[in-house]
Amino acid sequence: MTSKAFQDYYPDEFAHCYGCGRLNENGLQIKSYWDGDESVCLFTPEPHFTGGFPGNMYGGLIASLIDCHGAGTASAAKIRELGLSMGEKPSSRFVTASLKVDFIKPTPMGKVIELRGKVTEIKERKVIVNITVSADNLVCAKGEVVMVQIPEKPGN
Amino acid sequence: MTSKAFQDYYPDEFAHCYGCGRLNENGLQIKSYWDGDESVCLFTPEPHFTGGFPGNMYGGLIASLIDCHGAGTASAAKIRELGLSMGEKPSSRFVTASLKVDFIKPTPMGKVIELRGKVTEIKERKVIVNITVSADNLVCAKGEVVMVQIPEKPGN
Repeated sequence: MTSKAFQDYYPDEFAHCYGCGRLNENGLQIKSYWDGDESVCLFTPEPHFTGGFPGNMYGGLIASLIDCHGAGTASAAKIRELGLSMGEKPSSRFVTASLKVDFIKPTPMGKVIELRGKVTEIKERKVIVNITVSADNLVCAKGEVVMVQIPEKPGN
Repeated sequence: MTSKAFQDYYPDEFAHCYGCGRLNENGLQIKSYWDGDESVCLFTPEPHFTGGFPGNMYGGLIASLIDCHGAGTASAAKIRELGLSMGEKPSSRFVTASLKVDFIKPTPMGKVIELRGKVTEIKERKVIVNITVSADNLVCAKGEVVMVQIPEKPGN
């Protein structure tokens, strides 16, 4: 892992996301990194992010983490595909076309949650990422996101 | 619409969800109601729930609203299928087996967001709900949730 996360390279105007924007002071500010061919994000939810049952995590947060980690992974994968290092040019920013989550077992509160992403398709403006969500090395949810690159401004 | 929402009938031990639990003081506390055969939920996000671009809503919140509105709709649909009115017996609580969201266009900030749900399948412990997310009567996202009923305790 490197010390600077994928999200730290987003252009300022696209860095306001509640889930992953470094400029959103009230947001979750998740951070994603390469770990070999996989992307990884570690996250410990605050106590109020419970599901209906207080010992479990809120499903919407699981979907949110998958979405934002997927967008970050797509952005970094596009840079890597171009043969560049992060920071060599402004990061491509991706938006979500579709999001699918399968909830396998309850995700516990009070644990470090690990998301691991694998790029399964990268083609022109589209990147597909498969993501697992684990706690204590047990997979609690699986997700797939289809990400589409926002066209870059001339000069970027 | 009635004045008491689906979520107001959840048993206390399942009313802690960040998205829809009436006992989660830091949560969104969304409220869902019948409007004929459809379920409806109106929600105005706080300003920090932006997406990467500040004028649009955070995709994770859209997924979260679909998830919680879907769980509430499943619960109310089960009560209705039994020929009962809300409150006649403790509400069945549902958990999400899978969640799918197609993002069609950016969901604007500063607007009332309307979710409308339709039950497309109800079979024993499984309920499938299709949901649209609209602003200014334009559909911004579509979702499908597969909900599974939590087994009730004896005596409920």
